[in-house]
Amino acid sequence: MNPNESQTSFDNASDVLPQDLFASITRYERALMANDKPMLSELFANDPDNIPAIRSDCNGTLAGHAAITTFRAHRISAPTRTLRQRIARMLDHNSACVVSQFAKASGGNVIQTQVWQRIDGKWKIVTAHLTYPEPAIDKRIWRIVGTPLVAATKPGPLSGMRVAVKDLYAVQGQRIGAGNPAFLRTSPTCEQSAPAVRMLLAAGAEVTGIAQTDEFAYSLAGTNVHYGTPPNPKAPGRISGGSSSGPASAVACGQADIGLGTDTAGSIRIPSSYQGLWGLRTTHGRISCDLVHPLSQSFDTVGWMTRDAQTLAFVGKALMPDKDTANISHTLLISNKLNGCTAPDIRNAFELFRDAVQTTIDCGHINTLDGIGQAQFDPMMLDNLLSIFQVVRGFEAWSNNGSWVCEHRDDLALEIAMRFDHDSHIPRSQYEHGLDRLKQARSMVRNLIGNNVLLIPSASSTAPTIMPDDDISNIEDARIHTLRLTSIAGIGGLPAVNIPLQTADGLPCGACLIGPAGSDKQLIELAKELYSKATQQ
Amino acid sequence: MNPNESQTSFDNASDVLPQDLFASITRYERALMANDKPMLSELFANDPDNIPAIRSDCNGTLAGHAAITTFRAHRISAPTRTLRQRIARMLDHNSACVVSQFAKASGGNVIQTQVWQRIDGKWKIVTAHLTYPEPAIDKRIWRIVGTPLVAATKPGPLSGMRVAVKDLYAVQGQRIGAGNPAFLRTSPTCEQSAPAVRMLLAAGAEVTGIAQTDEFAYSLAGTNVHYGTPPNPKAPGRISGGSSSGPASAVACGQADIGLGTDTAGSIRIPSSYQGLWGLRTTHGRISCDLVHPLSQSFDTVGWMTRDAQTLAFVGKALMPDKDTANISHTLLISNKLNGCTAPDIRNAFELFRDAVQTTIDCGHINTLDGIGQAQFDPMMLDNLLSIFQVVRGFEAWSNNGSWVCEHRDDLALEIAMRFDHDSHIPRSQYEHGLDRLKQARSMVRNLIGNNVLLIPSASSTAPTIMPDDDISNIEDARIHTLRLTSIAGIGGLPAVNIPLQTADGLPCGACLIGPAGSDKQLIELAKELYSKATQQ
Repeated sequence: MNPNESQTSFDNASDVLPQDLFASITRYERALMANDKPMLSELFANDPDNIPAIRSDCNGTLAGHAAITTFRAHRISAPTRTLRQRIARMLDHNSACVVSQFAKASGGNVIQTQVWQRIDGKWKIVTAHLTYPEPAIDKRIWRIVGTPLVAATKPGPLSGMRVAVKDLYAVQGQRIGAGNPAFLRTSPTCEQSAPAVRMLLAAGAEVTGIAQTDEFAYSLAGTNVHYGTPPNPKAPGRISGGSSSGPASAVACGQADIGLGTDTAGSIRIPSSYQGLWGLRTTHGRISCDLVHPLSQSFDTVGWMTRDAQTLAFVGKALMPDKDTANISHTLLISNKLNGCTAPDIRNAFELFRDAVQTTIDCGHINTLDGIGQAQFDPMMLDNLLSIFQVVRGFEAWSNNGSWVCEHRDDLALEIAMRFDHDSHIPRSQYEHGLDRLKQARSMVRNLIGNNVLLIPSASSTAPTIMPDDDISNIEDARIHTLRLTSIAGIGGLPAVNIPLQTADGLPCGACLIGPAGSDKQLIELAKELYSKATQQ
Repeated sequence: MNPNESQTSFDNASDVLPQDLFASITRYERALMANDKPMLSELFANDPDNIPAIRSDCNGTLAGHAAITTFRAHRISAPTRTLRQRIARMLDHNSACVVSQFAKASGGNVIQTQVWQRIDGKWKIVTAHLTYPEPAIDKRIWRIVGTPLVAATKPGPLSGMRVAVKDLYAVQGQRIGAGNPAFLRTSPTCEQSAPAVRMLLAAGAEVTGIAQTDEFAYSLAGTNVHYGTPPNPKAPGRISGGSSSGPASAVACGQADIGLGTDTAGSIRIPSSYQGLWGLRTTHGRISCDLVHPLSQSFDTVGWMTRDAQTLAFVGKALMPDKDTANISHTLLISNKLNGCTAPDIRNAFELFRDAVQTTIDCGHINTLDGIGQAQFDPMMLDNLLSIFQVVRGFEAWSNNGSWVCEHRDDLALEIAMRFDHDSHIPRSQYEHGLDRLKQARSMVRNLIGNNVLLIPSASSTAPTIMPDDDISNIEDARIHTLRLTSIAGIGGLPAVNIPLQTADGLPCGACLIGPAGSDKQLIELAKELYSKATQQ
C-alpha cells in the first residue's frame, strides 16, 4: 500500500499496530487533549540509566523524562486537533514508528513523529518530534518585518545583506517603540532614518525589520515582558542577552545578517557573548546617535553584531568611512587581577584563548603587537568606575525618559520601573560631580590602555538560564558582575569587539578586545587576526 | 548517562550504535553535504510493498521513496552545518533512532530525527523528521507583518481578531504593492486606510499585516512568481488559489482570523474552495472599493475568508451595518445541467451535500426555504456570460493598469503580461457593446434567481497540484472551467458564500450559495444553517 499523495485521510495504525500499542497511542492523544499531565508523563519512557526520552520541536530538543515533564508543567491544554493522516510502521516486535498529521481548529497542521518502544511490557514513547504551525511573526525577535521593510537605496558592498534594526533607531515611515507597546502607541512616525540606518541602506544592505530591545535599552537580559525573551539558538533555555536582544537573536537565528544595536553598558557585547556572535561597540561619538532614542548620552554608542568577522569588518567600512584617528601598536594588555570577576567555565575558555594569542604574539605572527603586558585594572578600580557610570547613566536615563515614565509607570516591567525610580532620586549636584569624576576616569582608562589593546572576558558568565516562575535572581546577579567588566570600555568611551568563544560544555562566551579611542577599524582587523591565528594552532 | 541540558556538545552515537549503522549515518551526512542524490536515495528505504518511507518538515510530510526522491531532485545542496548534539538509541537489533542537532553556518539550528531499520541486511532510513530555522517572514503569504501592523482603533465585537489585508487595500502609512515588487517601489504611501480596513479596525480587529495577491489580482491561482505560491495546509503540494492568495493562506495556516480580499472573477470563492475556508463575495457596490487598487470596476467587490461561519457572520455585521435590501425566500435552486462543469470528485462531494440539504428542506427544517427547484442555467449560457465578462473586465483591467504595464512589461509574470497584452487590443466600441450586454445579462441572471438562492459547486476542481518545471497547463485548464461557474455571481453582481466541503480523498472543495443582490447577511446565516443542519444528518 502507498498513501496517495492527494489522499489526506489515510490511516493504517489499527491495521499494522498491535492492539495494546494502538490503545496506548489513543490514550496519549486523549490525555493530550485533556492536558492530563500524569498520563502524558507515564506514557513517556523514564529510564534514567538508559538513553533519555527525547521531545523535539521548533524551540529545541528536551532530553530526559524530567525535562519533558517540566516543560509540560508550564503548558496549557493543546488546542483541538483532528487526525488527517497517520502512517504507522512496526519496526520489530517491540518498537514502532507512527507519523501523524493533524489539522488544528485554530488553523494549520501539526506533524507528529513518535517512536514507541515496549519497555518492561509497557509501550512508551522514547522519541517525539513535532512541527507546529508557525506564527506570522516571532514577536520575541521582531516588532515589524517586511520583504524587506526598507529596500537598499543603492547597490554596494553590503548588497544582499539583511539588517535587523534595534527598536531605538528612527526608520523613515516607522515609529520608535523602544521595547514598550505603550511608548510605541504615543510615538510619532519618523520622517527620516537615523544616520547609521541611512548609511547601511546606501551601502546596499536592506532593512528586514525592526527588532526588539529591552525597555528603553535599560537591561542586559533581553527578557522583555511585553514581547517575550528572544530565543538563544546556541544556548536553548537561556536568555538572549540585551539590550540589543532582538537584533542579536535575529542574526543568531539566521533571520538577518547584521544586527544594528546600541551599546551603553554592554548592550552589544553581552548578547554577542551570550549568543556566540561577533560584535563591535564603537568609540563614543564616532558614529552619530542622532535619531536614536537615547538612554545616556555620555555612554551611548552605535554598534552591530554579525555571525562572522568578515561581515563585522564590511559594516565597519560602511559606517566609518573616515580614517581611524588612533593607531594600535606594541602590547596586548591582560589583567590577571580580574580573573576573579568571571565564572570558572568562562575563565577556562578565556585563558585557553589568551594563551593561544600569547603564543602567536610571542612567535611574532602579529605585526602590530610585539608583546604581552599586565594592565593596571583591578576589581576595586572597576567598582569605582561602575559607581561613576551608574550615577551619570542614571541621571541621564531619567532626564531622557522620566517624564514619560512618570505617566506610564504601570506600563513598565517592575525591574525597569525600579531602576528609573532609583534614578529619579539622583540629585543634579551628584550628577555634575559624577561628570567631573567621569572626565578624570575616562582619561585614566585611556592612559592605562594607551595605544595598546586590552583583552578581558566579555561577560562574567554564560547566558543565565531562564528560571520558572519569573525568578530573575540569577540574571540580576550576572548583570552586576558583568557591568564591572563592561564599565571599562563604557567609562573609557572606547571601542570593544566581542570575539566569540565556547566553554568546555559548548556554550557561547566571549573575549573582549578593547582598543584606543578611534581605532575601531584596526581593532576589528586585529580581532579577526588574533582569532584566526589563535584558533589555527 | 543523561545529556546535561547545558551540555550542547554531547554525542553517544559511536558508543551505542553498531559500526555498520554508524557508518551509514556518516555516509548519509556526507552525501547530504555533497548533495549526492543517488546516495541519499539509496539510504532511504524503498519497499513499495511495505509501509512507505516518510520525510517530514515544516512544509508537510512526503510519503514514499518516489515522493522523497522527487523532492530531492529540486533541491540544492544543504548549507554547511556542524553537529552540536546527537542522541542515539538502539530500539532492537534491527532498528535505531537518532536525534541530531546541527548548528547552521547561516544561523539557527537544524533538528533531525531519523529512524533507521535494517532491511535485507542494509541499514535504511524509514522515517525522518526535520526542523529548520524559520525565516523572519513567510514572503509567500505576507509582504509586511507587525505585532500588530495596525492596532484596533477601539474595542468591539471583533476584538482580538487578526486581519490579513490583501495587498490591494490602502493601509494608512503603508504602500500598495498589488503583488508586484516594481509596482510597490513606485507606489505612494497611503494617507488613510480603505473604508473596509477602517471599519474592521473600528470593530476591534487588528491588522496583523499586508498579505500577498496575484499580480494586480489578475489570476485565480496564487502562484505569484515574485513572492512564491502561498502554502495550502489542507492540500499540501497544491496551489493556494487566488487572487486573494495571501489572506487565504494566512487564515488557513492560523496566522490570521480574517482574510480581507477582493472578488472580481472568483478571487474569494476559489481560494476558499481550494483551502477549506468560509468565504463571502459581497453584492457588487455594497461595500465601498475606494482606496482599493481596481482590476475591473464593473465586477470588483470586497470579500473576506474565515475558518468558521460564525466569524464570517461577525465580519459581515461589522462591514455591512446597513440592513439587507433584499429578502431570501421560497426556493433553493440547483442546476443539474451544470453537472458536467466539474470534476467527478467535486461533483460527488457537491451532490452528497446538495442531497443532504434537500432532505433538510423537505423535512421543513429551514424556515426561509420551502422547496427545491431547477435553475435555468446551462453551460452554453455560462459561456456567453463568460464572454461578456472577459470583454468588460479586460478593457477595464487595461484602463486601470495599462499605462504602468506598458512601462514595466518585463516586471510581470509572463501569463499576466499576456493577459494584459490581450486586453490592450479590446476596442472601446467592443467594451461599450459589452457594457450593454452586461446590463442585460445582469438583469437576466438576477431574474433567474429572483429572491431564491442558487447552489452550485464553487470551483470546477480541487486545487491543482503544483507541477515541476513551472508547468501551469493544469492550472490554466482549471481556471477556464472555474471561470464559467464563477461568472454567474460575477455577471449578476450577486453575493456568494463558499461553504467548505471535502472530497472522498479529504481534499477541500466547496459549495457556492448565491443570493439576491443585497441579501448578503441573510445569505451568510442561511449558509450557516444549511451547513450545520445538512452535516448533522
